[in-house]
Amino acid sequence: MKRLAIGIDIGGINTSMGLVDRAGDVYAESGFRTSEYPYFEDYSAYVKKLAASLQELCEAIPSGAQLEGIGIGAPNANFYSGRMEWPVNLWKFRPEEPNPDDKRRIFPLCDDLEAYFPDVAIRMTNDANTAALGEMIYGNARGMRDFIMVTLGTGLGSGFVSNGQMIYGHDGMAGELGHVIVEPDGRACGCGRRGCLETYVSATGIKRTAFELMARDRTPSVLRKVAFDRFDSKMITEAAEQGDALAIEVFDLTARRLARALADAVAITSPEAIILFGGLAQAGDLLLEPTRRYLEEYLLSTYRGKVKVLLSAMDGNSAAVMGAAALIWE
Amino acid sequence: MKRLAIGIDIGGINTSMGLVDRAGDVYAESGFRTSEYPYFEDYSAYVKKLAASLQELCEAIPSGAQLEGIGIGAPNANFYSGRMEWPVNLWKFRPEEPNPDDKRRIFPLCDDLEAYFPDVAIRMTNDANTAALGEMIYGNARGMRDFIMVTLGTGLGSGFVSNGQMIYGHDGMAGELGHVIVEPDGRACGCGRRGCLETYVSATGIKRTAFELMARDRTPSVLRKVAFDRFDSKMITEAAEQGDALAIEVFDLTARRLARALADAVAITSPEAIILFGGLAQAGDLLLEPTRRYLEEYLLSTYRGKVKVLLSAMDGNSAAVMGAAALIWE
Repeated sequence: MKRLAIGIDIGGINTSMGLVDRAGDVYAESGFRTSEYPYFEDYSAYVKKLAASLQELCEAIPSGAQLEGIGIGAPNANFYSGRMEWPVNLWKFRPEEPNPDDKRRIFPLCDDLEAYFPDVAIRMTNDANTAALGEMIYGNARGMRDFIMVTLGTGLGSGFVSNGQMIYGHDGMAGELGHVIVEPDGRACGCGRRGCLETYVSATGIKRTAFELMARDRTPSVLRKVAFDRFDSKMITEAAEQGDALAIEVFDLTARRLARALADAVAITSPEAIILFGGLAQAGDLLLEPTRRYLEEYLLSTYRGKVKVLLSAMDGNSAAVMGAAALIWE
Repeated sequence: MKRLAIGIDIGGINTSMGLVDRAGDVYAESGFRTSEYPYFEDYSAYVKKLAASLQELCEAIPSGAQLEGIGIGAPNANFYSGRMEWPVNLWKFRPEEPNPDDKRRIFPLCDDLEAYFPDVAIRMTNDANTAALGEMIYGNARGMRDFIMVTLGTGLGSGFVSNGQMIYGHDGMAGELGHVIVEPDGRACGCGRRGCLETYVSATGIKRTAFELMARDRTPSVLRKVAFDRFDSKMITEAAEQGDALAIEVFDLTARRLARALADAVAITSPEAIILFGGLAQAGDLLLEPTRRYLEEYLLSTYRGKVKVLLSAMDGNSAAVMGAAALIWE
């Protein structure tokens, strides 16, 4: 009997899903816009739309195959409770809540999907953890029992694997490397505190660093021609590739802060490798080379020369869905 | 058949050992001075002395009981290789090494003891990890699957337990929270870097903080009457208990730095509790109360109100030996 799983990636803009097998073959794919009205505002409408899409996807299950489970990667997802807890950019309210300003924004997605799919395992964790699981089963972490996954998107996510197991923590919410504090009283973070790693190392962080350097120094740069609101991290990558001195320094500073936080994380879990994934990781050697160099400089001597820094082997588009499905293979 | 284990605690000054059972009953104890010539200088002499002491201890095994294994807690011990790697204060040389200045100071203690005890399991890890295992089996972490052990002695050691398992890391050397950097370009550390947590939070760290405050401020204090070399952390505890304002501020600053490092560690492993052990932990509420308060302040909101900060339930004298034996019960 062929065993299949559905992987779902829930992002602020798109919800993507795929029907896959353990070997990584994709049988069917679909998706819709999370941000489409009413899904973006109304959680119950979202659940209905998601269930309908899943049922459609199930029609692609070949005869003789069986759906083993549904794995979900989602922001602020709690592995143990199967709920999304205060996701920042999703669902303003649940209709069953009397007060739309209700701050208890907790969405029990696993339970709600179970009503539609009572006979299959449904598991959910945050998207950095699914990226780690995907990397462990399909990517550059195959065969590794101890590694750190770092996802560099709008924010910075992370997943820690030790002894071959995902670290979910006591409350199911472990792995928030983006919110270790690298600069006390530093940049304001969306979490309400200051100096978090993701305010420096992420697509938005690197943009803030570029503006800080343009203010601080007089180095000429093509970046000076672009307004803050039109700016994105790809422009910095392109400028650095063209040899723009300021853009190169932006990567250097970014790598240095990332390496400092990684050196501290290595002192805790002592991984075989750190794997970088996501938009900013696509800058490749611009980020990788200085990160490796500074990491060696900052590491406690015990760990020097032992920790690989690698780029993800997963293709950006399918990685999230394959990683979510990996929750079922784990 | 009654199952017994021997726990060995190797410290820079004393080597202690005990014959115990799973319930924590002690059948026999012994020990000798690690620092006695020639043990302190000569690793081979040390192994012979240790083996002889163990054989003596084995005479206390009652008939009908069986020695299941020997667990060892030791500085810089590698769980996987069974070797002590560059222990700072132990054994200047191994006689089989031609050059006493040889920097490859690696001591394969598990292998060397196996020659004397071929039929029992012999396992070794660092002393903070054995403290964590002891706490999990006999102490305040009973029933916990996710916690952080922090040992506050001359330095700061740590052991991380996730999913009910010790995190040893890829190289067997995980759990060096004492060497996360809390103050870039801060105090010089024995590891050769600057700003490590243990230069602030440990018996020596709190002493350095006291001297820094005496230099910086004009606050009167009984501590001003004591020379640096005569100073110890107990004096600060006693002064703070008497209401000495400077000593109280020393604890406040110490707790603040500890809490900041702990908040970052919580963002990685999300534990149920952090358990403090060792000389400085005996200051009790002087350290515990501000640590709890600052931890809540520094934590990412996801984790607030969820993480207990507790003192160890283990008695200082037997804890190390019981913890080492716990390597066999794990």
